[in-house]
Amino acid sequence: MSYNLLKGKKGIIFGALNEMSIAWKVAEKCLEEGAEIVLTNTELSIRMGQIKDFAEKNNVPLIPADATSEEDLERLFKEAMELLGGKIDFILHSVAMSLNVRKKRPYDNLDYDFLQKTLDISAISFHKVLQTAKKLDAINEWGSVVALSYVAAQRTMFEYNDMADAKAMLESIARSFGYIYGREKRVRVNTISQSPTITTAGSGIKGFDSLIDFAERMSPLGNASADECANYCITLFSDLTRKVTMQNLFHDGGFSSMGMSYRAMHQYNKSFENGETK
Amino acid sequence: MSYNLLKGKKGIIFGALNEMSIAWKVAEKCLEEGAEIVLTNTELSIRMGQIKDFAEKNNVPLIPADATSEEDLERLFKEAMELLGGKIDFILHSVAMSLNVRKKRPYDNLDYDFLQKTLDISAISFHKVLQTAKKLDAINEWGSVVALSYVAAQRTMFEYNDMADAKAMLESIARSFGYIYGREKRVRVNTISQSPTITTAGSGIKGFDSLIDFAERMSPLGNASADECANYCITLFSDLTRKVTMQNLFHDGGFSSMGMSYRAMHQYNKSFENGETK
Amino acid sequence: MSYNLLKGKKGIIFGALNEMSIAWKVAEKCLEEGAEIVLTNTELSIRMGQIKDFAEKNNVPLIPADATSEEDLERLFKEAMELLGGKIDFILHSVAMSLNVRKKRPYDNLDYDFLQKTLDISAISFHKVLQTAKKLDAINEWGSVVALSYVAAQRTMFEYNDMADAKAMLESIARSFGYIYGREKRVRVNTISQSPTITTAGSGIKGFDSLIDFAERMSPLGNASADECANYCITLFSDLTRKVTMQNLFHDGGFSSMGMSYRAMHQYNKSFENGETK
Amino acid sequence: MSYNLLKGKKGIIFGALNEMSIAWKVAEKCLEEGAEIVLTNTELSIRMGQIKDFAEKNNVPLIPADATSEEDLERLFKEAMELLGGKIDFILHSVAMSLNVRKKRPYDNLDYDFLQKTLDISAISFHKVLQTAKKLDAINEWGSVVALSYVAAQRTMFEYNDMADAKAMLESIARSFGYIYGREKRVRVNTISQSPTITTAGSGIKGFDSLIDFAERMSPLGNASADECANYCITLFSDLTRKVTMQNLFHDGGFSSMGMSYRAMHQYNKSFENGETK
Repeated sequence: MSYNLLKGKKGIIFGALNEMSIAWKVAEKCLEEGAEIVLTNTELSIRMGQIKDFAEKNNVPLIPADATSEEDLERLFKEAMELLGGKIDFILHSVAMSLNVRKKRPYDNLDYDFLQKTLDISAISFHKVLQTAKKLDAINEWGSVVALSYVAAQRTMFEYNDMADAKAMLESIARSFGYIYGREKRVRVNTISQSPTITTAGSGIKGFDSLIDFAERMSPLGNASADECANYCITLFSDLTRKVTMQNLFHDGGFSSMGMSYRAMHQYNKSFENGETK
Repeated sequence: MSYNLLKGKKGIIFGALNEMSIAWKVAEKCLEEGAEIVLTNTELSIRMGQIKDFAEKNNVPLIPADATSEEDLERLFKEAMELLGGKIDFILHSVAMSLNVRKKRPYDNLDYDFLQKTLDISAISFHKVLQTAKKLDAINEWGSVVALSYVAAQRTMFEYNDMADAKAMLESIARSFGYIYGREKRVRVNTISQSPTITTAGSGIKGFDSLIDFAERMSPLGNASADECANYCITLFSDLTRKVTMQNLFHDGGFSSMGMSYRAMHQYNKSFENGETK
Repeated sequence: MSYNLLKGKKGIIFGALNEMSIAWKVAEKCLEEGAEIVLTNTELSIRMGQIKDFAEKNNVPLIPADATSEEDLERLFKEAMELLGGKIDFILHSVAMSLNVRKKRPYDNLDYDFLQKTLDISAISFHKVLQTAKKLDAINEWGSVVALSYVAAQRTMFEYNDMADAKAMLESIARSFGYIYGREKRVRVNTISQSPTITTAGSGIKGFDSLIDFAERMSPLGNASADECANYCITLFSDLTRKVTMQNLFHDGGFSSMGMSYRAMHQYNKSFENGETK
Repeated sequence: MSYNLLKGKKGIIFGALNEMSIAWKVAEKCLEEGAEIVLTNTELSIRMGQIKDFAEKNNVPLIPADATSEEDLERLFKEAMELLGGKIDFILHSVAMSLNVRKKRPYDNLDYDFLQKTLDISAISFHKVLQTAKKLDAINEWGSVVALSYVAAQRTMFEYNDMADAKAMLESIARSFGYIYGREKRVRVNTISQSPTITTAGSGIKGFDSLIDFAERMSPLGNASADECANYCITLFSDLTRKVTMQNLFHDGGFSSMGMSYRAMHQYNKSFENGETK
């Protein structure tokens, strides 16, 4: 079912890898809602994932670009505007990676070169996207830029490691750049703080499925799926949310506003049932 | 222009008085987007305002009810469900009043009977709406309830008086009831924290136009209008935001995330230009 | 061990019942640190608790007063200033009660008379204390007023019921009145958001000991005790924190900044060990 | 006047340059309160500033170290423990610098090498201090680590530039590392979000004095001075605040909880008095 919410709009989607990716779902939804889009990811991710199939099947341009490279981003925006025949109306930034997580360096034994890389890929790339777009005047008035974040930016989740700091910085960039892009070009910039989601990226984090179970029981509406996140993105790309900017918007079934639910406490209490005492 | 975002949905709009009211704009937008609605307000407000004309012109039922009366609310929900032919999908709560503000009692000389009334009308009425709806099982699964709030719930605005405490309580009720209504009936409950808006209600507050000017210059996108607020409400009533609950959502052109803007500082600095020193 | 941090200072402590009370511990600490204090509570609480013994043993005045009564508060402040020989330097507000909790009315079946009482006792009483003090000019410049709160003001804890809304309002009052009392009399007003603590008041809430266990495992430093809370209060009453005002200060071993800890997750995971699947 | 709050405690103070520095004031206060300290700063800052005089006059060791160098930090901790005769009880991190600010690169034209440097000096250095300390087991149980931050981490202040993102990251590091250091060694980690303060560092930011005037009029207690910040630090280093961790603590005369004050609005309104209209 389509509302034509994005009819006539042009967008760039960063970070789709395969059909588990939130960015993949967002791309699908954007097409359904009448948008024209360009997909982008690194050469490596394009080889590793299925995004090429998606692009071909849907007749959508796929432009390889490294979001940490200003040169790549400049080329990307220029090609995208040419292919789409005009300026961009919306952007999804779904780019994150931590070598410290991958290489199992705990947070009190970080490799600082890895940390720089985490920040560059997961946070600074968002600044580069915005700065490049602004320099090229590549986004239409009332355009909308969204990056995906996670509640670990506010509340420590064990094993989330240096990604927490990167997400805190990402959300700060949304505010800092949102102020400038808003006052000068009416472009809004927000982050969505999404439930833990089983994607290829998410699955790298140790103990992630336990956390997903806990979050599911804590959240009165359950965890938000990638599909639901895509729906939410659509509203933020549409003309109905023009005055929402510099916000971090929780899309998480209520998790962020919970201290303790009955269901999670009930499950927790079962842990003591084998005669173990508190 | 319509997206049919609310096609087939039924809603109740509390608090429209005249065409300046946010609730009035929301009602208009809901109709445009394909919803069937019922309007409600107190007998007094119906007499004082123009909502009767709106109802007649748009062929929409108008049911007088005092949102602080459980009996009235019960009757309202029953009549609304009968008139609309089914359960409710969305509710807007735009109800607030402070006798302390009206009678110019400063915050350090509150009349406590007035305060009780402020709370009853501006916050507890929201709980009564939710409790009554839940008891009657009057809201469909994945229904959406929104109340209007203001940033004074987080940050003190001089002259906003006991309304700040009422809004803080209102937002807490959204969380507290949102948890229960979510886990049991999949109903989501949120508040929108709207820019200062020139309405009949807003105009009662002293120095309000200066504040609006300041907020306008602080917010990179400028203040959000009542029309824009109506657009935002539509997205929250739609099926595209199903996993957003227990949130206070700032719809304010960025004001809430600003500490100081160039424009506001520039204007502020002019105040020193007559030789006055800092 | 004493630092004489409150030497020469005069204070009023609301809400000590027995030696489990946080207010009791605060009173003890204040005496140790060189302050002169007056204790107060309702007639009923004085009869039910052991505060009379404390007062006699420590030679401290005990003045019965109902914190919801403006007359009582006026009398209290006047007597306290006379007994202490001058204006007040600090106040602890540790007053909270919910009949909805006591009578086991769930949050979606509140008795609204009880709710009014919850608000009057647990939140509005704080405003009355401040308003009465200000009218009588009963607090010295750079005086410090602290009320005890709980994280349920921000994040829903099941079974905490209407106390969550009362605490949200309490924290709002601290901000709203803190602004006025600060600008006019240099008096600061803050709330401490304390770990769940086993007191006579806390023990009324269902499932409270499970919650305490969970909070203990979530908080890297463990839950804060009543004794530790008393220590923290002392710093806020002292001259070393003069520019801290309108804040809600978490004193909770880190709980408020945690999303999930290893220890809590580890315990949670044990609940699945009996062959139950997630 | 001294309370001996830090008697027997040993600390390291990063970032004192001259008598305007907050770190300088903290060092003075620590000595007054009975602590033994080591001062540290970069070679360059030691040459440029007066900290050498302070060290000599007070007979305090001064160890040159670059807080971005793990080697320097390791040497610093080892020497400090040797000189002080034992493990460390408290640390102040007051280290921040942005070449983008200095070189007047606006936020939408950042030099990304400068940004990496901003992050390394102003945020990652804090992680390095903590990681190095933990590896060397250099901090006693119940030790306290404080870093200085600014409200720009939450709310955009024009011209604060990439320092906002660095401060957001700094506060995130305090939470992330605070969790680990707390659970394993009972060490607490917090940030103080201080009023804008006229220091050598602060004076580099354009329009900073206007901002200070505005903050002064917004804050009911006025801006917090460097001296007052030092007092507040003392309470956080003391044993009276043992369960406060992973917090960002506003020390700002109330600014962070203000939306608009009468005084600031009154001044703002003067800007329209020359016949200019809003």
